[in-house]
Amino acid sequence: MHEYVRDGAEIYRRSFATIRAEADLGRFDAGEARVAVRMIHACGMVDLAADIGFSPGAVAAGRAALLAGAPILCDAQMVASGVTRTRLPAGNDVVCTLRDPAVPGLAARLGNTRSAAALELWRDRLGGAVVAIGNAPTALFHLLDMVAAGAPRPALVIGVPVGFIGAAESKDALAASGLEHVVVRGRRGGSAITAAAVNALASEEE
Amino acid sequence: MHEYVRDGAEIYRRSFATIRAEADLGRFDAGEARVAVRMIHACGMVDLAADIGFSPGAVAAGRAALLAGAPILCDAQMVASGVTRTRLPAGNDVVCTLRDPAVPGLAARLGNTRSAAALELWRDRLGGAVVAIGNAPTALFHLLDMVAAGAPRPALVIGVPVGFIGAAESKDALAASGLEHVVVRGRRGGSAITAAAVNALASEEE
Repeated sequence: MHEYVRDGAEIYRRSFATIRAEADLGRFDAGEARVAVRMIHACGMVDLAADIGFSPGAVAAGRAALLAGAPILCDAQMVASGVTRTRLPAGNDVVCTLRDPAVPGLAARLGNTRSAAALELWRDRLGGAVVAIGNAPTALFHLLDMVAAGAPRPALVIGVPVGFIGAAESKDALAASGLEHVVVRGRRGGSAITAAAVNALASEEE
Repeated sequence: MHEYVRDGAEIYRRSFATIRAEADLGRFDAGEARVAVRMIHACGMVDLAADIGFSPGAVAAGRAALLAGAPILCDAQMVASGVTRTRLPAGNDVVCTLRDPAVPGLAARLGNTRSAAALELWRDRLGGAVVAIGNAPTALFHLLDMVAAGAPRPALVIGVPVGFIGAAESKDALAASGLEHVVVRGRRGGSAITAAAVNALASEEE
């Protein structure tokens, strides 16, 4: 039998303590630090802190939207799977439209990826929503273009797509957009880090 | 309108070309390199290559098991969500037992996490399976203890849990276990990297 910590609550407590001891969280206020700690927890890298960025009102906007029952709009099923339903304060809907049968046709018409085209099905719910993009840079770029063209504005955009083609650029564009946002600058990101940010905003329980 | 690459196939092609240009894949044979490229793609970090480890027969064992219809046993729903069903060669089952109603009781009885206890429900399907652990170190430790105590041996264990408490140790234990394995040594890992390894083994199409 291997020797290891078997108590889930104790594992969380020690993990968060390790992160707070090792990560440079000095740039963040208390609410931002709570979100950053969970994002770091999801990827195992304390140096992620240097790449995390918040707009000044991001945490308050996200928290208020979730308390008011805003839906969480996800670009990928993995992001939706990572949102802990029991932490949500208002039974919030967690929505991913990527597998909707309309999406392949929309993608062909738009000349864009299915990940981007799926956002067209968000329009009715976009106003005041919490958007969580953890996979596709094309989805984040398309969201910014939709909003610039007059689509309803979400309360918060967690924009943490990952990868080598467009990811860093899409996050820089979000940071410059005037929307309330959480980003991880550069190539790093992904569904786990994105879902962790949602989970941090959803409940003040560590 | 932002300027960005909107063609999904072209994004994949350029991403993989960037990874092959930047990552040090010299330690790997061709099959291992294909898996490593997809794991790097999932996290945006070319230096992950230095921490990826394969047992000598891992890629062949995983590929043969999937072709033969082996189930893919996942510790977390996010891992299961990340497996691209259309790449699977034999309509393989993708199984996650974490939300089974029996799990909380099993966890209490075992004095372990729910992630570890959920593996008790794998026993009937464990022989020859592809195991994909992308979240919980406790699940990987418990798997190793189950096999050491006589449980059926999986064909391959993709052991890539993430985090600060037990993750590195659990992956070192897997690497020393004699089981065919893929690991990412250290704290890094997660469901996206784990699912990417499954997706690479599932199809030879890049």
